[in-house]
Amino acid sequence: MQTIEDGRDPQQNVEEIKPFSIEQVFDTKTVPPWKEQLTTRAFVVSLVLSVLFSIIVMKLSLTTGVIPSLNVGAGLLGFFFVKTWTKLLQKSGMLKHDFTRQENTVIQTCVVASSGIAFSGGFGSYLFAMSDAIAKQSKEINKEQNIKNLSLGWIIGFLFVVSFLGLFSVVPLRKIMVIDYKLVYPSGTATAHLINSFHTPQGAKLAKKQIKELNKFFSFSFLWAFFQWFFTGGDGCGFSKFPTFGLKAFERRMYFDFSATYVGTGMICPYLINISILVGAILSWGIMWPLIETKKGDWYPADLPSSSSQGLQGYKIFIAIAMILGDGLYKLLIVLYQILSSLFQQYSHKKTGDLPITGTSTLVNPHFSYDDERRTDLFLKDQIPSWVALGGYVTIAAISTITLPYIFRPLKWYHVFIVYIFAPILAFCNAYGCGLTDWSLASTYGKLAIFTIGAWAGVANGGVLAGLAACGVMMNIVATASDLIQDFKTGYQTLTSPRSMFVSQIIGTAMGCIISPCIFWLFYNSFHNLGVPGSEYPAPNALVYRNISILGVEGFSSLPKHCLQLCYAFFAAAILVNLIRSTVGKKWAKFIPLPMAMAIPFYLGGYFAIDMCVGSLILFVWGKVDKTNAEAFGAAVASGLICGDGLWSLPSSVLALAGIQPPICMKFLSRKANAGVDKFLGS
Amino acid sequence: MQTIEDGRDPQQNVEEIKPFSIEQVFDTKTVPPWKEQLTTRAFVVSLVLSVLFSIIVMKLSLTTGVIPSLNVGAGLLGFFFVKTWTKLLQKSGMLKHDFTRQENTVIQTCVVASSGIAFSGGFGSYLFAMSDAIAKQSKEINKEQNIKNLSLGWIIGFLFVVSFLGLFSVVPLRKIMVIDYKLVYPSGTATAHLINSFHTPQGAKLAKKQIKELNKFFSFSFLWAFFQWFFTGGDGCGFSKFPTFGLKAFERRMYFDFSATYVGTGMICPYLINISILVGAILSWGIMWPLIETKKGDWYPADLPSSSSQGLQGYKIFIAIAMILGDGLYKLLIVLYQILSSLFQQYSHKKTGDLPITGTSTLVNPHFSYDDERRTDLFLKDQIPSWVALGGYVTIAAISTITLPYIFRPLKWYHVFIVYIFAPILAFCNAYGCGLTDWSLASTYGKLAIFTIGAWAGVANGGVLAGLAACGVMMNIVATASDLIQDFKTGYQTLTSPRSMFVSQIIGTAMGCIISPCIFWLFYNSFHNLGVPGSEYPAPNALVYRNISILGVEGFSSLPKHCLQLCYAFFAAAILVNLIRSTVGKKWAKFIPLPMAMAIPFYLGGYFAIDMCVGSLILFVWGKVDKTNAEAFGAAVASGLICGDGLWSLPSSVLALAGIQPPICMKFLSRKANAGVDKFLGS
Repeated sequence: MQTIEDGRDPQQNVEEIKPFSIEQVFDTKTVPPWKEQLTTRAFVVSLVLSVLFSIIVMKLSLTTGVIPSLNVGAGLLGFFFVKTWTKLLQKSGMLKHDFTRQENTVIQTCVVASSGIAFSGGFGSYLFAMSDAIAKQSKEINKEQNIKNLSLGWIIGFLFVVSFLGLFSVVPLRKIMVIDYKLVYPSGTATAHLINSFHTPQGAKLAKKQIKELNKFFSFSFLWAFFQWFFTGGDGCGFSKFPTFGLKAFERRMYFDFSATYVGTGMICPYLINISILVGAILSWGIMWPLIETKKGDWYPADLPSSSSQGLQGYKIFIAIAMILGDGLYKLLIVLYQILSSLFQQYSHKKTGDLPITGTSTLVNPHFSYDDERRTDLFLKDQIPSWVALGGYVTIAAISTITLPYIFRPLKWYHVFIVYIFAPILAFCNAYGCGLTDWSLASTYGKLAIFTIGAWAGVANGGVLAGLAACGVMMNIVATASDLIQDFKTGYQTLTSPRSMFVSQIIGTAMGCIISPCIFWLFYNSFHNLGVPGSEYPAPNALVYRNISILGVEGFSSLPKHCLQLCYAFFAAAILVNLIRSTVGKKWAKFIPLPMAMAIPFYLGGYFAIDMCVGSLILFVWGKVDKTNAEAFGAAVASGLICGDGLWSLPSSVLALAGIQPPICMKFLSRKANAGVDKFLGS
Repeated sequence: MQTIEDGRDPQQNVEEIKPFSIEQVFDTKTVPPWKEQLTTRAFVVSLVLSVLFSIIVMKLSLTTGVIPSLNVGAGLLGFFFVKTWTKLLQKSGMLKHDFTRQENTVIQTCVVASSGIAFSGGFGSYLFAMSDAIAKQSKEINKEQNIKNLSLGWIIGFLFVVSFLGLFSVVPLRKIMVIDYKLVYPSGTATAHLINSFHTPQGAKLAKKQIKELNKFFSFSFLWAFFQWFFTGGDGCGFSKFPTFGLKAFERRMYFDFSATYVGTGMICPYLINISILVGAILSWGIMWPLIETKKGDWYPADLPSSSSQGLQGYKIFIAIAMILGDGLYKLLIVLYQILSSLFQQYSHKKTGDLPITGTSTLVNPHFSYDDERRTDLFLKDQIPSWVALGGYVTIAAISTITLPYIFRPLKWYHVFIVYIFAPILAFCNAYGCGLTDWSLASTYGKLAIFTIGAWAGVANGGVLAGLAACGVMMNIVATASDLIQDFKTGYQTLTSPRSMFVSQIIGTAMGCIISPCIFWLFYNSFHNLGVPGSEYPAPNALVYRNISILGVEGFSSLPKHCLQLCYAFFAAAILVNLIRSTVGKKWAKFIPLPMAMAIPFYLGGYFAIDMCVGSLILFVWGKVDKTNAEAFGAAVASGLICGDGLWSLPSSVLALAGIQPPICMKFLSRKANAGVDKFLGS
């Protein structure tokens, strides 16, 4: 029990700052039964938005490879479309059903599920990396068995057999993640706040004030993101590259990057998470990587490009994965132990049929607020029987284990089988990590699959292709897992039935499996130099993935010196820290950082840790100065910051699509470099 | 009467936001008689600070030529020194007199008067421009009669005969400026707030809160200025060159430069002033200069450097001066009319001796607050008889009219005489403008003197030297005028006797006349390449002043086409606008911009107008959201912002003296230029 309470512990800080009950305000509105939450108009709007968002995601993944979170945009545009529609109907007196926040959540979920496939389908990464066009660009290993040319048919088939697995793998975990662990899912929570704010009934005074606060910071954050855009006319330009603590710290990725999203995220996340991330950033980028760098030429070749996995980058990726796996495995074992012991108890006492994992058997915490109680009630009312989830997973896994080797010759059934054994564990890790910090590390897990399966298959047997295919399978499961649990968190906070969410996710995924390949096919046939460096659509990640796969077929032996030993050490350390946290008791546990949170900056750098700590600091100072207001409006302000920045990704994507580039570059140069540049500009 | 009320009108906005009385808080403390405000320790500390500040000003004027306002630093360091001293004495039981805010103000005034001479003495500009070292650098007109080599003796003599004139010329104006016109003098007001906050007696709750607010924004503003410093490692670098509204607007000097000083100034200045400045900036930089630029090659030669007074720069300087003179002259005539009519009234009724200008004959405004009443009482109690001021001015003017032609051969007694006739008018204009907007335009008036006197004397008769000398006479009077009325404003708000201020100013000026030349002499003899471009001390303004003077000897005919006509037009327009303002009545007058405020950005650009409008906007929004707090803390926040930024000029000057340069350059490039720079950096 200690551990579950431990997991809940950091979250309680967040709950404490909400003395005000959103659900009491909504009590005047009845929650429609789950089937009524799934309206035709919702899915029509979802379809339109899915196409729109898929185009955006596709374009971005083929140009820069950087894809923002579109949750907020989906929630907002969904509201806007349906609200306009219902208002029109209302005026003409033809409105049958009011537009509810549940319906809004259903749209948001469906669009996220659908447009998510444009990313996890790997059109700009692993899938495109299989093609001839990309294979030509890397000198080694482009024999026929390592190439699979693209065609619309098999892509749709492939997506259909792998995309639903993520969904079924996480459905049973939703209660643990959302209710027991009370994970934060900053983006999901912010989206829920936004949706709630749209639908708040008239008359609630505090709610109105909160909405005002949310709108204010939403506008601010949106305008701030808009303003920032103007100064990003080039690589390394703009506020997001601001060397706040000097150029040396910037090289070590320690800087404040002025991202409203992460400041807001820091305000929603408990202090412990933010501090853990910062500690991890300092440990890795401040101490470990500089130390390893001194071994350059000894531990790893000195002439490698900095992005090579055989160099420093290799340590970063694999040590981070080891630590995340250690933490995730520990958490998973604890959960399994609890499930089994609870099963055993139930079995010996009551002999009821339902698995406790989806049941209501957990003790209701006496500290639960009214909001928590009401939401938990509804979240647990409409259950998705575990046999559906388990059955679905096993069935689809079986189908795809049989089908996939036909699509990709080098991929054997036992490769796929092994991936399906381990995928739920990694999906759990990713959903858990994302819940803590808002980062989905799907592509990192995908790279892990490339390394293991690619090496297993071997070069001669088309290991490069096998690795890329396995990456696809893994990424689809892992990416979907975190997206969908995030949506469940949104649903939990908007009293949306898990069943309607599940159905919406299935419909959305099915939409995505058809929409995304079609859009890609359009691009593929319209632009014949797709994937050529320097062209309009260079798809930079495709080549990166192929290179990783080429590296991967040589197996773990290709990793730099001592990397594997370090991985073992950090894997063990993660478990050890968790054991200590469970042993010392609540009082001390809150001072011990969480390994999962610590590992994330290992690979990415500390800039977002700084942002999040700034968020923490703001909330802390605010709480000191004016406790009442900080408690009442903290979450609203944070949500406003996250959502405003999130919404900007929509117009910014449109600008990118239209080929409009920012006019100014805000550049940071050392004094010396600047003197040189001034001379250059003068001449 | 209309006009005086008009002049008071904008200020009333400021008074309205102070429902809280500072002087009630201070009522427990008795104000010491004026002689006791002048303590020996105050002048010892002043001497030490004067030397320190003079070194800083001297160094800055010999390196970059940009000199920040040191009022705040003087007030703060004065407090710090004496407070430490009195605390030490108190502990040893030897303290005879408490440290009062009046004493603090006396120190601040003395230091400003003294270190001001390091600027107005022209060691980096007109004075140095006379020397052989600078004359060598400009090709034309360096015959002997246009060169005067420097020696310590005549410089001290020169300063003594001209520096006190500014002081005597403005003393009679202090009541009109401070009490009748209620001019704001943002820096002076901020300094007064700071000094008051240091000396606030314990127990006043609101005052304590205000001090807390002041300290908070003081620290913020100081840290912000500190942070900005790191990014200014080169020309055109840093936040002060931020093209907030795009690069095109930046070229037209329309941008927000993140200066806390001007945002704070905007919060203290009435809305009308800020809007007037903005209107002026848009009129000049947005409409007029671009239009004139289209006449390039027609109205003025196309191949001139942008800084040449024969080109666009000429229009900017002279149109601005014309408008300021028009406004100033109108105001002066109104004042003279009122003085004469009041004199006439007094003479015909009471036959009292005192000139009403320093008397208490003005009707006390029934809307006067307690603070106003108490301050006005004390300000008017200790009078400086007008005969002292007038007598002093005439005596010193007479001495220097006789002496100066001996120092500078080409300068005739009638040149000096004419300067002394017009100088008080310009001093009034400058003090008035500075009171409205915090900008002292002393160097602009100095340039006017170069043009008129230089042309009058003619090349053959050493007109270049005569012009520079006249510039010195003019700048000393005009710069001192605004500085000292500003100090009177500080004195007014700290209940410091005008008499003790006057004595402190005289002592400070005398100190400065000896300290500054000595420090310059030290530099001059230690660094033999003083004034050589590219050396450590290039004194850039010295060459600029000599070139202006060379241009000046050719007279107004050297101005670009139509410049003089435009000057006449704007001179007339300024008077016309004032006439309209007086005629239409209060209700409409508050919508008509002030010509004086409009003219200032003509020459400088609109960036500080933007800053000040941001300040206005902050106060406006704050007032809408939370009127009580905005009224209670607006002035404290503004003062904090101004003082923190002001104090940073001290350490930044020390850093510059120590040769420590900022490490990073934050540069702004167009996307195209950036692409070029990236290529250059890559190669």
